[in-house]
Amino acid sequence: MSSRPSTYIMEWLSKSLAVLYGLEEILYSGRTRYQKVDIVRTKDYGLALVLDGLLQSAEIDEFIYHESLVHPVMLTHPNPREVLVIGGGEGATIREVERYGGVESITMVDLDGELIDIVREKLPSWSQGAFEDRRLKLVISEGRSFLESQPDESYDVIIMDATDPVEWGPAAKLYTKEFYSTAYRKLKRDGLLVTQASSLSHSLRTYLSIIRTLGEVFPKTCGYSVYVKSFASIWGFAVGSKAGLPSELSGGEVEERIRDRGVRGLKFYSGRIHEALFSLTEALTRNWGAETLILTDEKIESGIQL
Amino acid sequence: MSSRPSTYIMEWLSKSLAVLYGLEEILYSGRTRYQKVDIVRTKDYGLALVLDGLLQSAEIDEFIYHESLVHPVMLTHPNPREVLVIGGGEGATIREVERYGGVESITMVDLDGELIDIVREKLPSWSQGAFEDRRLKLVISEGRSFLESQPDESYDVIIMDATDPVEWGPAAKLYTKEFYSTAYRKLKRDGLLVTQASSLSHSLRTYLSIIRTLGEVFPKTCGYSVYVKSFASIWGFAVGSKAGLPSELSGGEVEERIRDRGVRGLKFYSGRIHEALFSLTEALTRNWGAETLILTDEKIESGIQL
Amino acid sequence: MSSRPSTYIMEWLSKSLAVLYGLEEILYSGRTRYQKVDIVRTKDYGLALVLDGLLQSAEIDEFIYHESLVHPVMLTHPNPREVLVIGGGEGATIREVERYGGVESITMVDLDGELIDIVREKLPSWSQGAFEDRRLKLVISEGRSFLESQPDESYDVIIMDATDPVEWGPAAKLYTKEFYSTAYRKLKRDGLLVTQASSLSHSLRTYLSIIRTLGEVFPKTCGYSVYVKSFASIWGFAVGSKAGLPSELSGGEVEERIRDRGVRGLKFYSGRIHEALFSLTEALTRNWGAETLILTDEKIESGIQL
Amino acid sequence: MSSRPSTYIMEWLSKSLAVLYGLEEILYSGRTRYQKVDIVRTKDYGLALVLDGLLQSAEIDEFIYHESLVHPVMLTHPNPREVLVIGGGEGATIREVERYGGVESITMVDLDGELIDIVREKLPSWSQGAFEDRRLKLVISEGRSFLESQPDESYDVIIMDATDPVEWGPAAKLYTKEFYSTAYRKLKRDGLLVTQASSLSHSLRTYLSIIRTLGEVFPKTCGYSVYVKSFASIWGFAVGSKAGLPSELSGGEVEERIRDRGVRGLKFYSGRIHEALFSLTEALTRNWGAETLILTDEKIESGIQL
Repeated sequence: MSSRPSTYIMEWLSKSLAVLYGLEEILYSGRTRYQKVDIVRTKDYGLALVLDGLLQSAEIDEFIYHESLVHPVMLTHPNPREVLVIGGGEGATIREVERYGGVESITMVDLDGELIDIVREKLPSWSQGAFEDRRLKLVISEGRSFLESQPDESYDVIIMDATDPVEWGPAAKLYTKEFYSTAYRKLKRDGLLVTQASSLSHSLRTYLSIIRTLGEVFPKTCGYSVYVKSFASIWGFAVGSKAGLPSELSGGEVEERIRDRGVRGLKFYSGRIHEALFSLTEALTRNWGAETLILTDEKIESGIQL
Repeated sequence: MSSRPSTYIMEWLSKSLAVLYGLEEILYSGRTRYQKVDIVRTKDYGLALVLDGLLQSAEIDEFIYHESLVHPVMLTHPNPREVLVIGGGEGATIREVERYGGVESITMVDLDGELIDIVREKLPSWSQGAFEDRRLKLVISEGRSFLESQPDESYDVIIMDATDPVEWGPAAKLYTKEFYSTAYRKLKRDGLLVTQASSLSHSLRTYLSIIRTLGEVFPKTCGYSVYVKSFASIWGFAVGSKAGLPSELSGGEVEERIRDRGVRGLKFYSGRIHEALFSLTEALTRNWGAETLILTDEKIESGIQL
Repeated sequence: MSSRPSTYIMEWLSKSLAVLYGLEEILYSGRTRYQKVDIVRTKDYGLALVLDGLLQSAEIDEFIYHESLVHPVMLTHPNPREVLVIGGGEGATIREVERYGGVESITMVDLDGELIDIVREKLPSWSQGAFEDRRLKLVISEGRSFLESQPDESYDVIIMDATDPVEWGPAAKLYTKEFYSTAYRKLKRDGLLVTQASSLSHSLRTYLSIIRTLGEVFPKTCGYSVYVKSFASIWGFAVGSKAGLPSELSGGEVEERIRDRGVRGLKFYSGRIHEALFSLTEALTRNWGAETLILTDEKIESGIQL
Repeated sequence: MSSRPSTYIMEWLSKSLAVLYGLEEILYSGRTRYQKVDIVRTKDYGLALVLDGLLQSAEIDEFIYHESLVHPVMLTHPNPREVLVIGGGEGATIREVERYGGVESITMVDLDGELIDIVREKLPSWSQGAFEDRRLKLVISEGRSFLESQPDESYDVIIMDATDPVEWGPAAKLYTKEFYSTAYRKLKRDGLLVTQASSLSHSLRTYLSIIRTLGEVFPKTCGYSVYVKSFASIWGFAVGSKAGLPSELSGGEVEERIRDRGVRGLKFYSGRIHEALFSLTEALTRNWGAETLILTDEKIESGIQL
């Protein structure tokens, strides 16, 4: 018995499927104005950030998640200069955006300034100095109202790294048709929006609904996914675009653009991986269907069951 | 509370990581001479076969596992006619082999005849009539001693679908250098062996050790992996070959061979998936290293900790 | 890993406290018209009956529960002749009542005739032939409507062995003021009613509310409790009486009445135990207070949170 | 899902029975030279001290455990003046001893001085100033070697509040025949030793073996037990005595001695409780037998499976 850990985080991936993962150490445990924050050392995933009891990212594969979130849209856009990141308090999303020399300004909007301070201090390998980049403008604010306050056609790329759209959750209004309509107006020509889109393996309905909802606003959409071990899931991403889509890029084109734009330091993403993610996502969703719905403010307010 | 199931299978993926998955119904619960057999309906994975408490395959993705096990080596071999399957009692492995019209004889060796009877009756959608194929020779016997009793150069392809090489486990001797030496001799020119190779995400050391051990015997080896949701894992496969390797086949060649050999009914595998599996496996193992060891009969007998 | 069981029942004792108990074997798994029935062999408690995922009684200590339910009221009543048992499908409650030679008629009312058949066949050591007693009248019916259909002053003792009063649950209406008023009228002079009353350790509010609700109808009430290992709890019982209370009986009087009435075969209950249960219950409830409420049909219908 | 806690301590009560209890907050998490220390706020038990992942005592019922450990022997001894406490780092054991005005000196020996400092600061309601009592001599040392270094006939009462005798564990040598022989010599005439004795409900064999081992040394022994909700168990205690035993005291005598000796502030223990604990323990052990063994240094060193 002695060899098992005693403290576990129990995370329900669905109503009938739970993962128990053992902790080695709790480095920080506190509460900001908005959420409960735990920074833990897990046996299986290394250091991890846990918000309100849900693992957000872990040392062993945060780069898989963050590279997969950021690079497909950044490489698809012909020349992204103005980038907006909503959420992403760990600083790893902006870390990936900053790999592009052509980017001139990054606006990061996160509700929880206290969380950012905690993470910068306790998990510096996530941001790796990203908060010091002179191109970064950090805004502590609610993402939707911030975006609504911006002039139209402000950004080339919008990257949504918010928590899941669980019913009544604070982030749910970042996944509705109304929000995407606003985002659409704030994007310049050729603009793209990518959002994390929940677990394809355990919340397929949510994933497909996000893509369908984007499709109500954007002329083109696609979805893709990647295995994130610390999420015990295939994690989904959804893209809405005014012009090109990541799914239209070949692996060779991805390689070429990585090279041409001087993107260095990638640990996971590549042309081959790009193709692999789209191929696998297509095969999985073909086999595992689900009914979908269009997410709207009204449905969110009335507490739809996702 | 009422919405959660009450009966769960608790499976430890590592010493500190457990999955609890809820059951809807237990269709069969018994014990053969060799193992405890449960056939259950899970909430998340549909029907599933559970041996000694470990989920072996589930309705929702058994085809992902079985297609990924069988087709890479079958398509790599220029003309597989004699195939040996060790294990695979569910009948889904031979189901995939039987898709090849060019195969003349399939020998399936499984220790547990009672299990085969149970599965044929209770999970007929796994074998889909595969046990009735006139090319099949079913042998109820221990795989290693059976193989030792065969003349040399008997098979074109050997497919190992046994339980994991946990220390002292009955199947552990199907993963040693000594076993692979025997298998090597039983393979004809151009022959390949593929074995399921444990969880890449949760037993990386075992996966890499199996590949390394194959490398002590075969001139060429490769590994690949696929996400199997019901295993909560990326599952690994390892190949030893006398000639070509699946990793050397392009997606286009895979597509062409699937067409040329008349392989029909695939739900997951394809040329694009083939490339995706190898790309992702390479990226994951590059980032997640582990020390390896060469598996030998002696080490197995002395109870090494894998 | 091999030494732990793989199948567990997960039972939530509170919203934040779960017990996982390992199963050795599932002897029966089915569904009657009213509930899911599992008969399992647990590692820690021996054979057990599980209804809708909740352990109802286990080999290792069903006698502790059933003796504690039945004997305090039976011994308190000066001469119980007509006894009504509501629930108690396992047959162990009537087994205890039948130990009294002076009892002339036992009416057992249970909703689920199929369950009784299953339990008689699969768990015969619970009833030990109790269903064959010629004094028994078995009625398959809903307990409350049955009782309402009886003439007033029909019984000396009413024993309630129903499932817990969880909100909206089928048994909830067997714990309201309205039900107890009916029961009161059906009791003869000196009549007593005892009901199982949920977990004192994990649902103290429910336990105390049941006693308080009885107090709205009966001139005298008391509560007591006993440790039931297989419930991982101190289990509560509540009594309403027209005359004497078990709490007023000394251990010596209990011993004397056991002897005088020829009660044989007790494995747990005795005069000393009688005193112990009341002493401990008093000490525990004194230290662990809880707000209570009066249970009414209206509150049950509106779904109060117990 | 939101209503359940996310962090749990998983404690195995047996090889097949686990309890998961939810945490509200981790107030302290660190490691002394000897053990991992967590001070947590649980949902069900209030504040709790957890050592090496095992809950040691909790706000909701630490007084039940500590009063039950201390008072039976203290009241049985005709006039306890010199008391030795081994273990009990929380300070609650000495808190109970200090209720006796007649006690002249209390020696508390605990290995882990750092733990004592942590607990005094973080859980002051456990010791309630007990460490400031002028009669207390606190010795940071290993209990067995300390006792061996004392002159014979030094104490009236020895109270053992150490961790469980799990195989190879550091405390195992505080439960052997050899240790009890030493303790016997250090006790004055009429001397008694009490030790916590593991879970009667989940480690009955350990509990009974401790009593049997005491019986190899002391002329008189007895065992008793009490329900401790936060241990999810009936917890056992074992007594060895040179003269009187707690089991020989009536409830009335207990009441009288509590009064005569001016013991004030008890929340649980009383004459009635005293009788109840012995009655219930007798009934439980009568029904739940177990094979026992005599614990010796040699058996402990060779790693017997308790």
